[in-house]
Amino acid sequence: MRFARLGAVGRETPVLVDGEVNYDLSGVTRDIDGEFFESDGPARAAAALAAGELPVFEADGVRVGAAIARPSAVICVGMNYAAHAAESGSAPPENLVMFLKTPNTVAGPFDTVSIPRGSTKTDWEVELGIVIGERASYLDSPEDSIKHIAGFVVANDLSERDFQMAVSGGQWSKGKCSPGFNPTGPVVVTPDEVDYANLRLRSWVNGEPRQDSSTADLIFDVDYIVWHLSQFLALEPGDLVLTGTPEGVALSGRFPYLGAGDVVEVEIDGLGRQRQEFVQA
Amino acid sequence: MRFARLGAVGRETPVLVDGEVNYDLSGVTRDIDGEFFESDGPARAAAALAAGELPVFEADGVRVGAAIARPSAVICVGMNYAAHAAESGSAPPENLVMFLKTPNTVAGPFDTVSIPRGSTKTDWEVELGIVIGERASYLDSPEDSIKHIAGFVVANDLSERDFQMAVSGGQWSKGKCSPGFNPTGPVVVTPDEVDYANLRLRSWVNGEPRQDSSTADLIFDVDYIVWHLSQFLALEPGDLVLTGTPEGVALSGRFPYLGAGDVVEVEIDGLGRQRQEFVQA
Repeated sequence: MRFARLGAVGRETPVLVDGEVNYDLSGVTRDIDGEFFESDGPARAAAALAAGELPVFEADGVRVGAAIARPSAVICVGMNYAAHAAESGSAPPENLVMFLKTPNTVAGPFDTVSIPRGSTKTDWEVELGIVIGERASYLDSPEDSIKHIAGFVVANDLSERDFQMAVSGGQWSKGKCSPGFNPTGPVVVTPDEVDYANLRLRSWVNGEPRQDSSTADLIFDVDYIVWHLSQFLALEPGDLVLTGTPEGVALSGRFPYLGAGDVVEVEIDGLGRQRQEFVQA
Repeated sequence: MRFARLGAVGRETPVLVDGEVNYDLSGVTRDIDGEFFESDGPARAAAALAAGELPVFEADGVRVGAAIARPSAVICVGMNYAAHAAESGSAPPENLVMFLKTPNTVAGPFDTVSIPRGSTKTDWEVELGIVIGERASYLDSPEDSIKHIAGFVVANDLSERDFQMAVSGGQWSKGKCSPGFNPTGPVVVTPDEVDYANLRLRSWVNGEPRQDSSTADLIFDVDYIVWHLSQFLALEPGDLVLTGTPEGVALSGRFPYLGAGDVVEVEIDGLGRQRQEFVQA
């Protein structure tokens, strides 16, 4: 199943996406959030659809919001593709590298993004996002992870490299949290619909290809990530876990950083495509 | 003014603390949270108190919750006292070091704390916490910060040093986010009641003194911190900013790390005192 949130910022309507048709889920849930996922929302939505109880939502001209409501946390995995670690000047990590973005970075997949004031190194990062469905703490093994996953989503882990590394004392979050730095969506897709261990993920700037890899190349895979993180913190329903980005970002030195007027697109097969125009803050 | 949250986890009642008396604020606000602060909640609470409209809340035997509801973000400043940087093996930072804790770490000031599984280096950190009252983004100068501050609070930025530094690839958050790792309270105190630039802050383990410093020793002070952070992210009403810890933690090598049965107390003059018993997770 596929879920989305359509409407103005802060007033999105939760919808079930069935092919080209959007069905209004307002009668089933207040939002696409942790409460929806941990209360068997997807099953209730499926039952309501089968019973013909869901009105069609007319989406023409309506903004696409972030595919999930603001989570309690955005947990990110760094340096999780070997070729990206290399282009960043690092060896592949021995241990999973975790950092955080503030939840207020989460934005719609087509929202305009502001380049932060003082930025000269704003960079894109297409990533597979995991949406947590059930609280995960001290999972016994990676095999248990899938029971705690509600679905998958496209994310763009936007980053300001000087803020992240040059003026940060080594802690990356300062370059990861500017407003709008986490376009998320357009849809969250339940695990049964995607082969999440083998998804092609790509990015483009002004139509020119940048990243083109597969989640098959993840150093720490989806099941390992959720299990591992659960040893160090409690993942909450509705939380977003970003799994890391592959090679092909501006940090490599092969491409220019983003400026006002640039357009970034990121896509993951089966999960949809985003498009953002950049402006100066 | 002083605000607190009293009651079982997730069912705390917001109260106004006036000397020894607690007044029930349920008629004024749902919680001590961002909505309360940005909607002039403290002024409305004061008016209700003056009008005799607030019922007394009988607090005997009632749990003290975190002084604020779960924030949208917990933003931390690292290495912000020179002597602590030195005991950690670092030079004082040239730039403010920012990292994040997940908001679900926030806990009551007297709640039992679980030492994470696999931990051998659980450590205490008394810190002055800033509670944001009004959204802060691109503030013009440090002088503007105070207008965005709702109050101050005692926090214990609990840390697992191996998780933070040995198995983290250098990103600290992995050792900062275990459940319960952010006791917050007992009260949030409005800025007019404290000289926040000169507050003595102390900690004890099993009654023995550990940290004893003053916020006068902060490298980056409160006003600088809020202004600086606002250049890199948007601080939301109700967010918690931890300003860093002074010397006297176990990481220094001068004291043992925490084990099951240990009792930690942390206190900031004018803001109150916390006490936590530690158990094994």
